[in-house]
Amino acid sequence: MKPYVMGIDIGGTNTVFGIVDTRGMVIASGSIKTAKHNKVEDYIDELHREATRLIEANDAVDKIHGIGIGAPNANYFTGVIEDGVNLPWPTPLPLAKLVEEKFGIPVAVTNDANAAAIGEMTYGAARGIKDFIMITLGTGVGSGIVINGQVVYGHDGFAGELGHVIVKRTNGRLCGCGRTGCLEAYCSATGVARTAREFLEIRTEPSLLRNIDVDQITSKDVYDAAVNGDKLAKDIFEYTGAILGEAFANMMVFSSPAAFILFGGLSKSGELLLKPLRAAMDRNMMAIFKGKPKVLLSELKEADAAVLGASALGWEAKPTTAPVAE
Amino acid sequence: MKPYVMGIDIGGTNTVFGIVDTRGMVIASGSIKTAKHNKVEDYIDELHREATRLIEANDAVDKIHGIGIGAPNANYFTGVIEDGVNLPWPTPLPLAKLVEEKFGIPVAVTNDANAAAIGEMTYGAARGIKDFIMITLGTGVGSGIVINGQVVYGHDGFAGELGHVIVKRTNGRLCGCGRTGCLEAYCSATGVARTAREFLEIRTEPSLLRNIDVDQITSKDVYDAAVNGDKLAKDIFEYTGAILGEAFANMMVFSSPAAFILFGGLSKSGELLLKPLRAAMDRNMMAIFKGKPKVLLSELKEADAAVLGASALGWEAKPTTAPVAE
Repeated sequence: MKPYVMGIDIGGTNTVFGIVDTRGMVIASGSIKTAKHNKVEDYIDELHREATRLIEANDAVDKIHGIGIGAPNANYFTGVIEDGVNLPWPTPLPLAKLVEEKFGIPVAVTNDANAAAIGEMTYGAARGIKDFIMITLGTGVGSGIVINGQVVYGHDGFAGELGHVIVKRTNGRLCGCGRTGCLEAYCSATGVARTAREFLEIRTEPSLLRNIDVDQITSKDVYDAAVNGDKLAKDIFEYTGAILGEAFANMMVFSSPAAFILFGGLSKSGELLLKPLRAAMDRNMMAIFKGKPKVLLSELKEADAAVLGASALGWEAKPTTAPVAE
Repeated sequence: MKPYVMGIDIGGTNTVFGIVDTRGMVIASGSIKTAKHNKVEDYIDELHREATRLIEANDAVDKIHGIGIGAPNANYFTGVIEDGVNLPWPTPLPLAKLVEEKFGIPVAVTNDANAAAIGEMTYGAARGIKDFIMITLGTGVGSGIVINGQVVYGHDGFAGELGHVIVKRTNGRLCGCGRTGCLEAYCSATGVARTAREFLEIRTEPSLLRNIDVDQITSKDVYDAAVNGDKLAKDIFEYTGAILGEAFANMMVFSSPAAFILFGGLSKSGELLLKPLRAAMDRNMMAIFKGKPKVLLSELKEADAAVLGASALGWEAKPTTAPVAE
């Protein structure tokens, strides 16, 4: 087997790519701007040019076993980026096929949260854990579900959208998905900012957050205020952690994971979030599961995690298109 | 491989057992009373005696490959019936070990809902479907989750307790599990009877159900009244189906099954339940899943289903105890 894989993480702003060895070391990495090109062909041309430069500079020509790509709404079964994503190109977009034709290397794709789960299982906090749920707490809430050592893709490749479990049945917040009451509307970074605006409007007590333009408040502002002892900011984390913990207790009866692993900006809030989260899990947990699941933080560096996760998928990439006749 | 398996379904009242061939034909079956014996050893003695009689009468001596058992709270990994079940013996109870020692045949156990899912996958409505969720609507609500052709057991063998997802966060009904708002408190046969009592108390309109002692109303009474055009009874099914459909939409974002398969007494209500169920699924479904999952009814005869499902597990039974020295 060839000694390297390439991992590519396609985000709305940046595309990061890296050459990774069998031990999960990122040998070298680079990045390009995702949104620079209006035509996806031009984007893939630049990606190929820059990745090739990296491959040549690191003596890795003909040594790349496969390419793994994590991208929003990317479907593992079809290799296609489906509708409804914040990328500048028309969808559905046959990503795996386009990249494979350009690079001449087998490609496997999955969505970004699944890629993070694979990375965590292969190189991070989930090593040796066969049943876990990865929750990414970023601008949105994503998830990758692993059961018996395998990522759950479902019948259509779209399983694991746990940011969109309904957690509020009445008067739920409008979610980006068009429905109301989704977990993502409460427990993402933007959800925390929404909670801050709600709390500031409903409550009258003083708060450090009142010094900030209410429309500009971010989850980072809430974190900073809470660290400085601000009661209202701490209550926002209590509220957020309680909803997340309730949701975790409900996920437990589904697949009974040994651990929930948190990843993404909001997970860096540490005990501010984890303490109410664990308390709510315990309060809402069915007796047979009480005290069983761990809540762990990702062990991967955020800069590496997406590329590492995507790269792990590269080891299982198989050619999906017929080889080009010479 | 030996040509038969034995399936055993242990219920609170009856224990049914049958000899099943490779095509899923129940060659012969029998039953004993579960609760007759205060000592589990006596129960297993009678089970062994009656099963042996059946085996001998059907020329199946030394032709049983394995025994599969479905029983409440039975753990696939450990072979043990755990606490909190309506059986007359102390728990935890090492069922697989006791039966295997008595019969000298490898035994595999799982809980009754997982057994039903295996039966449906092997012989019923889920043949050829690799991702589905089996929901048993009986006295309680049970579930067996199948992902990529495999029953989901979770890290501890207790996954798939979907009767205990919380569907009402505020003022939820007390559930047998000790928590409030569980699906089972609404969508089981007993849940339907509770809804009937609530509706009769809150509402003032006439109803056929008012002719029945309110404490004696069963889901069957509600069904009979609805079939006779009773508005209040039909509303009870609307209410039940809506809660079940909302719950299914929430399960969809987890494992994206191709189908939900209904089994058990309440599933015989047909369109009375299915129509509001499908409507609520559609109303609550995330866009990418809309219209995808089927709702199917079990294709197994209720009398055979549990035995067939348990028997299918018999094919994968492996000896768990060391052979007795001769």
